[in-house]
Amino acid sequence: MDRFSKEALSIDEIKHLERLGVLCRGDILKMTTLAKQGHPGGSMSSIDIYITLYSFANVNPKDPYDPGRDRIVISHGHTSPGVYSVLGRFGFVDLDKAIAHFRQAGSIFEGHIERVVPGVEWTTGNLGQGLSAGCGFAVAGRVRGLDFHTFVVMGDGEQQKGQLSEARRFAVKYNLPITAIIDNNGLQISGTNKSVMPQDIKANYLSDGWEVLEIDGHNYQEIYQALRYSIKKKKPVAIIARTVMGKGVSFMENKEVYHGKALTIDEYKKAMAELGLDDDLEEYRRMREAFKPEPHNFPPNEPVNIDTGTPFTYKPGDKVDNRSAFGNALKDLGERNNDGKHTPIIVFDCDLASSVKTDGFSKVCPNHFFQGGIQEHNTATIAGSASTQGVISFFADFGVFGIDETYNQHRLNSINNTNLKLITTHCGLDVGSDGKTHQCIDYVGVMRNLFDFKIIVPADPNQTDIVTRFVARSEGNFLIAMGRSVIPVITDESGKPFYDASYTFEYGKADLLRDGNDGAIITMGTMVYRAIKAWEILKNKGILVKVINVSCPLALDREMLKDACKTGLVVTYEDHNVNTGLGSIVASAIGEEGIRVKLIKLGVTCYGASGESEELFKMYGLDAESLAKVIEEAKR
Amino acid sequence: MDRFSKEALSIDEIKHLERLGVLCRGDILKMTTLAKQGHPGGSMSSIDIYITLYSFANVNPKDPYDPGRDRIVISHGHTSPGVYSVLGRFGFVDLDKAIAHFRQAGSIFEGHIERVVPGVEWTTGNLGQGLSAGCGFAVAGRVRGLDFHTFVVMGDGEQQKGQLSEARRFAVKYNLPITAIIDNNGLQISGTNKSVMPQDIKANYLSDGWEVLEIDGHNYQEIYQALRYSIKKKKPVAIIARTVMGKGVSFMENKEVYHGKALTIDEYKKAMAELGLDDDLEEYRRMREAFKPEPHNFPPNEPVNIDTGTPFTYKPGDKVDNRSAFGNALKDLGERNNDGKHTPIIVFDCDLASSVKTDGFSKVCPNHFFQGGIQEHNTATIAGSASTQGVISFFADFGVFGIDETYNQHRLNSINNTNLKLITTHCGLDVGSDGKTHQCIDYVGVMRNLFDFKIIVPADPNQTDIVTRFVARSEGNFLIAMGRSVIPVITDESGKPFYDASYTFEYGKADLLRDGNDGAIITMGTMVYRAIKAWEILKNKGILVKVINVSCPLALDREMLKDACKTGLVVTYEDHNVNTGLGSIVASAIGEEGIRVKLIKLGVTCYGASGESEELFKMYGLDAESLAKVIEEAKR
Repeated sequence: MDRFSKEALSIDEIKHLERLGVLCRGDILKMTTLAKQGHPGGSMSSIDIYITLYSFANVNPKDPYDPGRDRIVISHGHTSPGVYSVLGRFGFVDLDKAIAHFRQAGSIFEGHIERVVPGVEWTTGNLGQGLSAGCGFAVAGRVRGLDFHTFVVMGDGEQQKGQLSEARRFAVKYNLPITAIIDNNGLQISGTNKSVMPQDIKANYLSDGWEVLEIDGHNYQEIYQALRYSIKKKKPVAIIARTVMGKGVSFMENKEVYHGKALTIDEYKKAMAELGLDDDLEEYRRMREAFKPEPHNFPPNEPVNIDTGTPFTYKPGDKVDNRSAFGNALKDLGERNNDGKHTPIIVFDCDLASSVKTDGFSKVCPNHFFQGGIQEHNTATIAGSASTQGVISFFADFGVFGIDETYNQHRLNSINNTNLKLITTHCGLDVGSDGKTHQCIDYVGVMRNLFDFKIIVPADPNQTDIVTRFVARSEGNFLIAMGRSVIPVITDESGKPFYDASYTFEYGKADLLRDGNDGAIITMGTMVYRAIKAWEILKNKGILVKVINVSCPLALDREMLKDACKTGLVVTYEDHNVNTGLGSIVASAIGEEGIRVKLIKLGVTCYGASGESEELFKMYGLDAESLAKVIEEAKR
Repeated sequence: MDRFSKEALSIDEIKHLERLGVLCRGDILKMTTLAKQGHPGGSMSSIDIYITLYSFANVNPKDPYDPGRDRIVISHGHTSPGVYSVLGRFGFVDLDKAIAHFRQAGSIFEGHIERVVPGVEWTTGNLGQGLSAGCGFAVAGRVRGLDFHTFVVMGDGEQQKGQLSEARRFAVKYNLPITAIIDNNGLQISGTNKSVMPQDIKANYLSDGWEVLEIDGHNYQEIYQALRYSIKKKKPVAIIARTVMGKGVSFMENKEVYHGKALTIDEYKKAMAELGLDDDLEEYRRMREAFKPEPHNFPPNEPVNIDTGTPFTYKPGDKVDNRSAFGNALKDLGERNNDGKHTPIIVFDCDLASSVKTDGFSKVCPNHFFQGGIQEHNTATIAGSASTQGVISFFADFGVFGIDETYNQHRLNSINNTNLKLITTHCGLDVGSDGKTHQCIDYVGVMRNLFDFKIIVPADPNQTDIVTRFVARSEGNFLIAMGRSVIPVITDESGKPFYDASYTFEYGKADLLRDGNDGAIITMGTMVYRAIKAWEILKNKGILVKVINVSCPLALDREMLKDACKTGLVVTYEDHNVNTGLGSIVASAIGEEGIRVKLIKLGVTCYGASGESEELFKMYGLDAESLAKVIEEAKR
């Protein structure tokens, strides 16, 4: 498309845009008044920016998911009435439906914009994440060799969010072709920006190395010129657009009450008269009353072909930690799929590559490795948004940063139906002497709140390699959670590696590693080899128990559980908060199945101390010997 | 104390400090080499700052918790060897123990500094939160009329964290007497700051309105002068201290490998020789081997006396939402405890006061209401750190911001043993048409991962009022989680308000609201009145069930549960992710108790749509009629 090709808008073009501006303002007021809620004020201050963007950016309602399209991210998702109005006027969506069914249960025209609406690139609503999402699109575009531009429109209130400063630095570091447009109407819910939280937005952008333009955000020529200038720059440029909340209707202008309040019918009529537009609200009201919920279809994440190769098999006696096994597999995936110019894999780090073992990949695919610095919020969102764009996106971090610090970023990723491979190392007390602030003991407990995330907690380096390749070729959001320490290769009773080439990973299938009928240990991750050690101790005492590896705690293998319960004694055993992880999931399942069985839950019961991990496990009664003792006592 | 009173340090004083600098460097190397781990490099670049601070700030090892003391926050907690060394040299702790037991399981000298160590004000380790913690101390000091100064020492890598930009703006908005000292050694784990994430730290601070000084961070005179200047300013001043990682030992200087790596014994010996210090490591090794774990005692959060008055009782028919009941109670607490100058209550908002109903309090206690802007990470930490300082600290926000976005801040608060009253409104699908990004359906599922947080989900305005006063007078971290909508006053069968003046709230006690033997509905929050509605529907059909309000889901009333199970049918019913909230807790308890009962879990099974809340409950089978139907079918 002929993107911002003309030097300037003609008078006729401006007239046309101005007319659109009036019509869209009418749409916004209809939507919000009919729904009796929503955010008209900000929609009316952003609308001239939206109109100019959708008029001249490379977007096409006939082919809204063309990989080469420009990406337009609207970060202040509460301006949804403005967005729907423009998308309707430009043919991306049915305008009448948008007006009639705004904020109606089952409609795609939700209170905050969503990716199920054609033309909407990213579901927003929690402020401050849009610029990061835009960085993710730009990064994916670069590694795929696509020459699109990314526009991110934001509110001024949300400039207060710290994640923005992280995104600004990332965009400058990688010199991304991004234009940020800030709707600077000066008002937020509680009053003026100045009174709520004084901020020099321009100085903030300049201090992070952005070029900054200042324009009148209701002057189409100025908006056009600034956008045109910025896309030619192919680097981060911020446009601060001075705007007026409620612009276009005299009694709404500069009133923060209209941030989140619809007009009454009387006010609406007065406004429509001032805009010179007809009042056809009754027609829409009839449509609204006749509404039937419609399907919400996400655009498919662009498919990626990848050769996931053959798993490495580590031998008994090899000294390997799971994170190195992950790193080796990732490097192998990188090499194997690298045609010299491209690989479909992209990896994000937050200054921990040497610990989370993505440094091997970074050497073989340096252009596909992105160092996000100590900026986890930004990186989590970038990794998520990039994952929807025809690349396989890995974000590897310590558990506390990749999960605890960034939970809400992953929540938004999940709501956006991303395709992220989140890899966390240093989970559990196994972290050792970095202590409680660094011990992520809630990797299951926190992430199980996200409906679509699948969690895999591999038992040894071999299973880690296998599941790394598995998630690389599987659609959807995955978390692989690992500890820190070297752990032995899990073998069968004969000493053969259990997770060797003959093993096929199936999400949700538990593995019976040792058999017995005197009880069952249900475990995962770094505790599996300890459970086997306990099995040996108990065997020598004449007690034979099952050892079951549940590497997919959220998809508990109910048949295996029932078998375990038949022994009369189930012990869950995990390096995780005992209230919220595997033990809680097993207990729930037993409760739901209505099974009577003696259940003992072993896990972490307080924030951990700082010491060698094995010392810690001993101290908290979680070493193999303590486990064996608990079972022995239960069998007395 | 005579704080930084002299115009300049004398030559003798400087010599004394320099000698201390050598000794502390020796301590750092002993600690880390003996433990075979830790962070010597950063400790040695920060140590001269620490020595100067603890020499001249108003701190007293004999009375480390004097309310009037200056607060020294060390944000880059991995420089613990440096901190312990200084605290040992100044008599806050036993230096020999610190050297011998660094990072030993059960010792207070953990890998990252902790508040259980006298002289340490705030447990850190997750970077980027220290300046916010310092703001919390400063705010509490101001409202209490204490004239102390707050110093926050930080690393340069952590300047990348977005939360810092939020804290900078907050400090300037409230003109807090804070000095930020940045140990600018230019290196982080993966290499130079410049290569990892380019940042103009000075420009960032200036852009947010701070005064910035630049000094040589190893020159005691310069450090002293800069600190002296800054405390006189009584406003936010940043000191960027140019330092050298590993400073003092030639072969360690400017090597990022020593960020997180201890010296070998040979390297250690070489270093000690260069420092001109004796090698007494063997003595410490013997001490280490003879170690016995010692108690970890938090300094008591300063007690606060408060008159919590008499609860309001709303009458049946009153149109009130829980959040207004909270707001009214909070305002009453503010008025009641305001002597015209002071109140022991302090309230934090993130631009939502009119929605979370703290606006009433803000009018009666304007100087105790802090508007943090759209900066939730910063505000959550501030509210937490302030809560340890002799004030009752409320942080009120929407659930998605006060919980999901800020989980890791509360995790650190919890680890710090804070005394926070976290109030979240707009939880659940009850949010309605703001849609999925705004519907916090994991307020129990996420927060139950924190060991000490107590969660209360009140059933109606009366219980809300009562528990608001309860948490105000109760020590510890509490979450009160509420919905958005107006809900009816819960009554007994005779129509009398159930939660009236005769009701005493007891944490962990469930309430039997309706009785019956055909089944039991276990519920909480906004669903309680719907459960009663279902009870009425079922009663008319000849089915009598119990309705049990579990307002404290984490402290499930097991006796009440057993009674419920005796009916043979338990239905959990919640406006929360069905996998992680009340249903999961009840199912676990049933599994643990080994009870056989038919269990049905009703709750939220997907991210919610945007529509009127009652429409949503219907759509997802969670309205009273659907609940009654489920029970009716189960009884067939």
